[in-house]
Amino acid sequence: MRYEELTIEGRNAVLEAFRSGKTIDRLLVLEGNKEGAVNTVLKEAKKQNTVVSFVKKERLDQISTTGKHQGVIAFAAAYEYAEVEDLLAAAREKGEPPFLVLLDGIEDPHNLGAIIRTANLAGAHGVIIPKRRAVGLTATVAKTSAGALNYTPVAKVTNLVQTMEELKKEGLWFVCADMDGEVMYRQNLTGPIGLVIGNEGEGVSRLVKEKCDFVTSIPMKGDINSLNASVAAGVLMYEIVRQRIGK
Amino acid sequence: MRYEELTIEGRNAVLEAFRSGKTIDRLLVLEGNKEGAVNTVLKEAKKQNTVVSFVKKERLDQISTTGKHQGVIAFAAAYEYAEVEDLLAAAREKGEPPFLVLLDGIEDPHNLGAIIRTANLAGAHGVIIPKRRAVGLTATVAKTSAGALNYTPVAKVTNLVQTMEELKKEGLWFVCADMDGEVMYRQNLTGPIGLVIGNEGEGVSRLVKEKCDFVTSIPMKGDINSLNASVAAGVLMYEIVRQRIGK
Repeated sequence: MRYEELTIEGRNAVLEAFRSGKTIDRLLVLEGNKEGAVNTVLKEAKKQNTVVSFVKKERLDQISTTGKHQGVIAFAAAYEYAEVEDLLAAAREKGEPPFLVLLDGIEDPHNLGAIIRTANLAGAHGVIIPKRRAVGLTATVAKTSAGALNYTPVAKVTNLVQTMEELKKEGLWFVCADMDGEVMYRQNLTGPIGLVIGNEGEGVSRLVKEKCDFVTSIPMKGDINSLNASVAAGVLMYEIVRQRIGK
Repeated sequence: MRYEELTIEGRNAVLEAFRSGKTIDRLLVLEGNKEGAVNTVLKEAKKQNTVVSFVKKERLDQISTTGKHQGVIAFAAAYEYAEVEDLLAAAREKGEPPFLVLLDGIEDPHNLGAIIRTANLAGAHGVIIPKRRAVGLTATVAKTSAGALNYTPVAKVTNLVQTMEELKKEGLWFVCADMDGEVMYRQNLTGPIGLVIGNEGEGVSRLVKEKCDFVTSIPMKGDINSLNASVAAGVLMYEIVRQRIGK
């Protein structure tokens, strides 16, 4: 089990953290701020007996890592990475075939946050990221996830290929997104599935792609090469949702 | 649609560019120059968070096209907005029913760039944005669009509702994305269509929503409220692509 320090910034992200039951060690609020959204945060803080400090803007700016604190920064105990087993357990608990999202080297925290946000809403049971050459669960990721990080488990593994081998023994099929795949509408994406999304610039790495059972592609009609990684992940996750609903 | 880099040279010209609100991608300043006029330029650059590099005279001389840089060269981005008519013409040229994307107040340049990128790949004929309370075509938008801004026309209109009325006369139907709509898979999204995406925080505004012919929604299975605006736009655009392919 691994922990990372976390500051949660911005009104919605902080409010969502309180409401999800996360332990907030301390809350910093811009002094003199009487806005409604800030009052809502303060009410939640009072409910949970959180220590609140009213501070100057300079203090918040100094602590902020995203530059977008909106007058509110919370210090959370820590985000906890899940184990891969927890993700499978989440699927079992819901009585659904596992639906996992594997990220092969996403480097941009905004992409990781947006993907976790989408995974939550698409009903995926969790996200798996590798330890190396990838962004972890930073404050920017938490903020961009719009609270989804409080609900959707994220596991961090040493070797993505080895994790895929173990998950295959649990009955999972792996589909990776790449230009040379069959168009996604023509593939069967129901059943226990691991969707593999590649790095922003280089796509899915060779070894990971070799472990995939099939390659799928989003139809591209335009003049440029590729979608933004979090948009591509969203389009693919929702094709899985569509096929699962239809089944 | 044109997108080109402009170099602006000389203290007054650069200062004027900053003050006129032009987007400056990057500012080059002769190293060691402490003159008052240069400091004034640097102050403007700081205000606008422009990237500043201090370089040697040889470098400036090499880039300069006028030979009169006075120790200051700025790289600005210049863009030309399309007219709504150009978007319809693009559809006619391809012999396709119009597929336009209307953005009702997107504020984040990364979202706008990613949406233009997706619009290009999904085969949309253009994007319409309002003049007020929305981000325009800045350098960040161009960069995030990954080149799509060179191909996909973007029109900027004074009044989105009025533009929708005019487009209805051209046979377009408008669908807006909102939580209370019918699930997108069950709606007919083929035919001449305008897809309306709302603001990141507040969604589609009331007047615009009233002008829409129907409201559609992305199925949400999770614990949080909404998808990232560019992911939602991507999922919806690709549902339109899927239905158009299937037809």
